[in-house]
Amino acid sequence: MQLAGLVDPDALADDGEAVARHALAVWNALTEPGDGVAGRLIAALGAVDALTAARSDTPDTGAIAEASGVSPAEYRAGRRRWRPRLDAAGIGAGWEVARRHGIRLLQPGDRDWPSQLGDLGAHAPLGLWVRGDPAALGRLQPSVALVGARAATAYGEHVASQFASDLAARGIGVVSGAAYGIDGAAHRAALGAGGLTVALLAGGVERPYPAGHAHLIGRIAEGGAVASEVPCGSAPTRWRFLQRNRLISALSDATVVVEAGWRSGSLNTAAHAASLGRPLGAVPGPITSATSAVCHRLIREFDARCVTTPDEVRELAGDTVAVAWSERGRGARTDDSTRVRDALSTRTWRETVEIARQAGMDPDEVGALLGFFALEGDVERGPRGWRLVTDAR
Amino acid sequence: MQLAGLVDPDALADDGEAVARHALAVWNALTEPGDGVAGRLIAALGAVDALTAARSDTPDTGAIAEASGVSPAEYRAGRRRWRPRLDAAGIGAGWEVARRHGIRLLQPGDRDWPSQLGDLGAHAPLGLWVRGDPAALGRLQPSVALVGARAATAYGEHVASQFASDLAARGIGVVSGAAYGIDGAAHRAALGAGGLTVALLAGGVERPYPAGHAHLIGRIAEGGAVASEVPCGSAPTRWRFLQRNRLISALSDATVVVEAGWRSGSLNTAAHAASLGRPLGAVPGPITSATSAVCHRLIREFDARCVTTPDEVRELAGDTVAVAWSERGRGARTDDSTRVRDALSTRTWRETVEIARQAGMDPDEVGALLGFFALEGDVERGPRGWRLVTDAR
Repeated sequence: MQLAGLVDPDALADDGEAVARHALAVWNALTEPGDGVAGRLIAALGAVDALTAARSDTPDTGAIAEASGVSPAEYRAGRRRWRPRLDAAGIGAGWEVARRHGIRLLQPGDRDWPSQLGDLGAHAPLGLWVRGDPAALGRLQPSVALVGARAATAYGEHVASQFASDLAARGIGVVSGAAYGIDGAAHRAALGAGGLTVALLAGGVERPYPAGHAHLIGRIAEGGAVASEVPCGSAPTRWRFLQRNRLISALSDATVVVEAGWRSGSLNTAAHAASLGRPLGAVPGPITSATSAVCHRLIREFDARCVTTPDEVRELAGDTVAVAWSERGRGARTDDSTRVRDALSTRTWRETVEIARQAGMDPDEVGALLGFFALEGDVERGPRGWRLVTDAR
Repeated sequence: MQLAGLVDPDALADDGEAVARHALAVWNALTEPGDGVAGRLIAALGAVDALTAARSDTPDTGAIAEASGVSPAEYRAGRRRWRPRLDAAGIGAGWEVARRHGIRLLQPGDRDWPSQLGDLGAHAPLGLWVRGDPAALGRLQPSVALVGARAATAYGEHVASQFASDLAARGIGVVSGAAYGIDGAAHRAALGAGGLTVALLAGGVERPYPAGHAHLIGRIAEGGAVASEVPCGSAPTRWRFLQRNRLISALSDATVVVEAGWRSGSLNTAAHAASLGRPLGAVPGPITSATSAVCHRLIREFDARCVTTPDEVRELAGDTVAVAWSERGRGARTDDSTRVRDALSTRTWRETVEIARQAGMDPDEVGALLGFFALEGDVERGPRGWRLVTDAR
């Protein structure tokens, strides 16, 4: 294979596995994120044979279609996409940058590979370039994605911090995109709580983006991992941001949108979560706040769960949480006891029949309830009837 | 009938209708709100015969059961509730207060009787004492109940005002309970918009409650109506508040909780709305606000609709509203166009094949899209390839 010389010498060992890893790394460089045709070809033929076919000038498209389900038209379109990048020097440059920065390539099947990415099917990433500890990727079950607006409000950042801090302290990984605003607040709070946090970038991980978060991204890499499916040297284009968002939701047990603008990438992350069947939550906020409007829309129209506490986020992510709703939600009293209490006074003594008249109840029933209240010390009986005990109500 | 002398002389005319009205007024005084046994008796026997039976010392409970479905045990329990109030002087005193204050009794079947109260079945009120214009009650279709915490925040009062003002200006009645906080803000804004607003009180309408809202309640009566199902002289007990809440939701096409405390009566109003099958809405707010917590709970656990604009309230109430979601919600671009645009620059000219390489796409497809962009004026072609037109993106 013409491209073999580019790979890390370690991987050049003359065994099938190393060659397969190498071929998959080449595929990672040839394709844009989410290339389903490449995904299906590799799944059916293996990375090595798929690459051989892609490089051949006379591929047997009929045999390929039979083996992979990729139609000749899809295949030809794919080859036209991939061929402009079949350039050894270009691919090797990205790999060399990674090597220089200590950035490692995690591939499907590796011990630390996050298997939940398999839910993306043919659109799963072909590799993840990792700055920091690749094992952090393997520890994202459980985890929650906290995402949202770059132009977040103080309220949104406060909520993101509170949620991230609580989740991280309970051993739940916090996944986000390292952007300004909500993302940054979530990563920072998770680090502050000494928990696990992972950032997914849209471009190559050797280049911190946004630049203003270079220090934060460095801290995330120290304590957890910063990952991207595109090789070093790749610019963070809009397309790659959108595809990066699918990784954020696929890695996490649940995705929570904290605040978002109308054209926000968070909506896109939310849509990915929904299409993967991952639970989706949204944090409500003031209706007067533009950045909460998308959250409300997600709740109104896209069945996002309204989440207001870290416990509710954990519940969303499938963590078993005992929320004392029954206690907190004890409704107003609506029974006969209420009617009798309403008719009692702490100052004036009242006869049972008068209490019954005021309550509009049977005097016998009222008498029975009064006896019950007396047992509980709530009322007292005197020569002129009943009255409420002052501190009982 | 012993009690006949108590009624307004007009109603004493020797005709069946006047006698029936009189008997129903007596029933209104004998019962506490929502007395289903009285409701079923009156529905089956008519108010006059039901009253005769209730006053008899030897009622034929078998015949009553057969006619009304009220069992002998229920009937006897009912009589024991009603008899303490079968006191002509007591009932007459309340009627005299009403006459003195110009307060009129609206009864089922009257022209202005709000027929939607019929949905309460046997628990429907037997009459409504009205201060102001009884016709206002008949004009509550369409209407919306805006309810909430007495201890509202500035945010909650702002939202209540905004919603009430918009709804009232569009001819939708605003129903509430005249309490401090949300209720007051809703009434005031509806009055300010020159619209219809109706207040339901828990006690007699001759006594403004809360006292601090005496002036506001007077203004509501001038422009619309202040109503209660209990006669003048009745204290606003907790039981009556809870029953008053059922009238607020039954009168309205939809109930919206703006802010509420954990033990708030608003939850009770919401529960009534839900049990009547009336649409229920709740306004989200900051999760850091205790008064928004109940709203979030209604959204999370009781299927309340998250409402954030007056249009959404109108939609909830069944008003046809064209909300331009499709416009507001235009998502991020996720197609091939995005990928090609990502690969273009406003400064650097790029050849098609280079753009294809960066986009990871088939050069022919890229060429086709570039042609399309050029037609739209978004890109321009030069001797060294393509670039984006500056103000096109």
